[in-house]
Amino acid sequence: MKAPDPTPHKRGSFWSWAVFGIAGVGMFALGLLAASVMERRNESVEAQVQFTTPIPDFEADNSVWGVSFPREFNSWESTKRMSERTEFGGSEPRDHLAENPAMVILWAGYAFAKQYNAPRGHYWAADDVRNTARRSEKTPATCWSCKSPDVPRLMNKDGIANFYVQKFDHYGDDVKNPIGCADCHNNKTMALQISRPALKEAFARQGKDISKATHQEMRSLVCAKCHVEYYFTGKTDDGKPANYLTFPWDNGMTAEAFEKYYDEKPHVDWTHAISGAPMIKMQHPDYEVYSQGIHAFRGVSCADCHMPYKSEGGIKFTDHQIRSPLENVANSCGVCHRWSEQDIKSRVVAIQKKNQEMLKRAEESIALLHLEIADAMKLGATDDELKKPRDLVKRAQMYWDYVSANNGMGFHAPQECARVLNRSLDLSTQGRLENYMVRARHGATGPIQVPDFSSKEKAQAYIKPFVDAQNAAMATEAKK
Amino acid sequence: MKAPDPTPHKRGSFWSWAVFGIAGVGMFALGLLAASVMERRNESVEAQVQFTTPIPDFEADNSVWGVSFPREFNSWESTKRMSERTEFGGSEPRDHLAENPAMVILWAGYAFAKQYNAPRGHYWAADDVRNTARRSEKTPATCWSCKSPDVPRLMNKDGIANFYVQKFDHYGDDVKNPIGCADCHNNKTMALQISRPALKEAFARQGKDISKATHQEMRSLVCAKCHVEYYFTGKTDDGKPANYLTFPWDNGMTAEAFEKYYDEKPHVDWTHAISGAPMIKMQHPDYEVYSQGIHAFRGVSCADCHMPYKSEGGIKFTDHQIRSPLENVANSCGVCHRWSEQDIKSRVVAIQKKNQEMLKRAEESIALLHLEIADAMKLGATDDELKKPRDLVKRAQMYWDYVSANNGMGFHAPQECARVLNRSLDLSTQGRLENYMVRARHGATGPIQVPDFSSKEKAQAYIKPFVDAQNAAMATEAKK
Repeated sequence: MKAPDPTPHKRGSFWSWAVFGIAGVGMFALGLLAASVMERRNESVEAQVQFTTPIPDFEADNSVWGVSFPREFNSWESTKRMSERTEFGGSEPRDHLAENPAMVILWAGYAFAKQYNAPRGHYWAADDVRNTARRSEKTPATCWSCKSPDVPRLMNKDGIANFYVQKFDHYGDDVKNPIGCADCHNNKTMALQISRPALKEAFARQGKDISKATHQEMRSLVCAKCHVEYYFTGKTDDGKPANYLTFPWDNGMTAEAFEKYYDEKPHVDWTHAISGAPMIKMQHPDYEVYSQGIHAFRGVSCADCHMPYKSEGGIKFTDHQIRSPLENVANSCGVCHRWSEQDIKSRVVAIQKKNQEMLKRAEESIALLHLEIADAMKLGATDDELKKPRDLVKRAQMYWDYVSANNGMGFHAPQECARVLNRSLDLSTQGRLENYMVRARHGATGPIQVPDFSSKEKAQAYIKPFVDAQNAAMATEAKK
Repeated sequence: MKAPDPTPHKRGSFWSWAVFGIAGVGMFALGLLAASVMERRNESVEAQVQFTTPIPDFEADNSVWGVSFPREFNSWESTKRMSERTEFGGSEPRDHLAENPAMVILWAGYAFAKQYNAPRGHYWAADDVRNTARRSEKTPATCWSCKSPDVPRLMNKDGIANFYVQKFDHYGDDVKNPIGCADCHNNKTMALQISRPALKEAFARQGKDISKATHQEMRSLVCAKCHVEYYFTGKTDDGKPANYLTFPWDNGMTAEAFEKYYDEKPHVDWTHAISGAPMIKMQHPDYEVYSQGIHAFRGVSCADCHMPYKSEGGIKFTDHQIRSPLENVANSCGVCHRWSEQDIKSRVVAIQKKNQEMLKRAEESIALLHLEIADAMKLGATDDELKKPRDLVKRAQMYWDYVSANNGMGFHAPQECARVLNRSLDLSTQGRLENYMVRARHGATGPIQVPDFSSKEKAQAYIKPFVDAQNAAMATEAKK
């Protein structure tokens, strides 16, 4: 009979086989994991580049793109649900003029005094520009530029300058689709691309080639082609407005750079109906303000926060329901900031509240200056005497609007917005002091009688006679 | 002849022994590493709690503490090298009045108009308070409170209120040691402790028990016992100033909370020699401003940035060379912010520059208001007419000083500092408009003749007659 061999050598063998066995099982598990990882990568890669049907050039119908890219399309379609841009997902629509009736005074004689609502989702872009109370038969086609992926086709057909020179209504039947796929993507490769001329031209004028931008830069630049300060410029051969869409970036993107730019042109958007000041309107300089904040400094793009990655099953894709990160904190802010959602929101809201305080203060001061200049006019002050106060109110309002018109309520660059609002307050202060001296020279030693503009309706009723008088004067002028 | 056994079993044995061998070596190495880690931990623990000699109660001589804690002592001693607080380690001393001559106007009639230099390291605290041009024979002992670890002994000997009521010179021989170990540490356990009454009292008045603070909170509170806004208050039984050191925190730590607090008292630090306004000086509200910034929000303490951990050999200890993190970016900011030192510095400097722009603007406006009130006085305006402008200049300057006097040049809470400076500009603007009307009623319809205060010397020469006249008037008043 042979007993089991109890020598150390044999025992060693047993344990070593056990180690091999465990290692084997471990390797097998690792293999499974690797396979799973690769599979998910493949799924994801496939989802990104697999066209089930080719997309024709200038295809503006978002649902055609949606055939190959259902997840992106479905999430884009969710911008339809954003029928009312609410503060943080609440149910009340936001009417800026009702919230800030002083704005009506600030825009007296300009269309913004009529209606100014917070924007709805991209899905509504074409409808909303068609239906805004700010539109009239004089509105140029330029106002379509950012509102529809039909625009590149029309620009290609008619030429860029010829497109801008038309009236808005000229293209009323051609524009059918709201902001969507073709606005940012190449139809063959899905690469990000700049589908409009103004941004490319602004880069070119600064000696920069936008085609050299990195993918991460493009994740902001496709937004920047619209979310910027712009104005309409140029004259046609027969002296009419060419309404060429232009970004005033030649000196940089700060409020000071814009002030210098418009001084050099010089450009005026409208004459103020109450104060007679030559005015400039700022248009949502979102990219410009963002560029001066900490997120841009750290290389975070617009899409990183407003279109964060999302998972469905094994597939990771970009959420195309472009919206405030506050409505999507976990997927957006949470990727970098490992704080509770409540902490994140409280921090953002605190920043926005401080911004709001400074905005209101600047706004109030500008409104009073317009009214005080009007009082000086009534007292008999000449245009010459009022040149300085009018120039200062123009500048003060431009600085205020740089912050007011940009989205994010100061969040994108809190200290820079505060600095710009500080400059605004300083400019309106200088204007008010100048104007007080003018009034004093005409015998006024007390404050003006401030009208009641505590609601949008009251403010609109107050400015109406000024606007009517201005319109009548312009009609008379036109007849001459 | 027996050939080597080539059976799989034997080959398996060879490889399994090899695996055992490698594993054995690995385990040995791991053991060494563990031993080394434990040793370093022990070294570190020992270094923190090992007293080579006991430290007596009220021991104020820092070198006695240094016997047991040489690393902490040596790094504390390095504050001696900070003989001139320079911007970022440069060689030029910083004279705030030379850099901002408008400050001389703002403090006309107050000691800060004489001398106001950036502070040197803690090592120099006792020397510098003894030698400042702001000190006079009237200076109370309260001014010693934060400057020396000799103070707790003297307060214990004489009583807190009796200490404050003395003159500064009364304790001239007793105070020997500059800010050091005993100011923050318990001599038996080295635990952090609050060695002065004012902070504890401020907490108690708000119903908070400072002894319940966590260690991390204490890493800020030991700084907060001095780096705060404070004032001297109370009267002795025979009606003389009790100069009791008090933090005006009862309504909170914002500029608005301080304004409300001083309105309720009401407290006045001095009467402005030019404008006759009742004034309040803010004293470095560092902890208050820090509390409103992102670092406090994220639970980062003063010590985390100003006294970061440091390694010498195997020992990690707290660097007691308390200084600007900009002089120590890698050990300080770099722990959390994995950016290049250059990126970090450029970000901080950009914040400080914007803060500086807003500070200067507020400062300028306040200086002009003081001068314009003086002009109104010359024109014959009564105290009654000037009540409102004087009240407004007091408030504007308080808000400005809340930011100006705090260390960090706006960095600790950039947007909050901007908000406070915006409020300051608003208040001085209101004051200037009010005063313009007063002047207009007395016949002035143009701006004042602004004196040249473009250098410290010119500004000091300008205010001298005003200060002399004020002193003469006070002397006459005292004789009555």
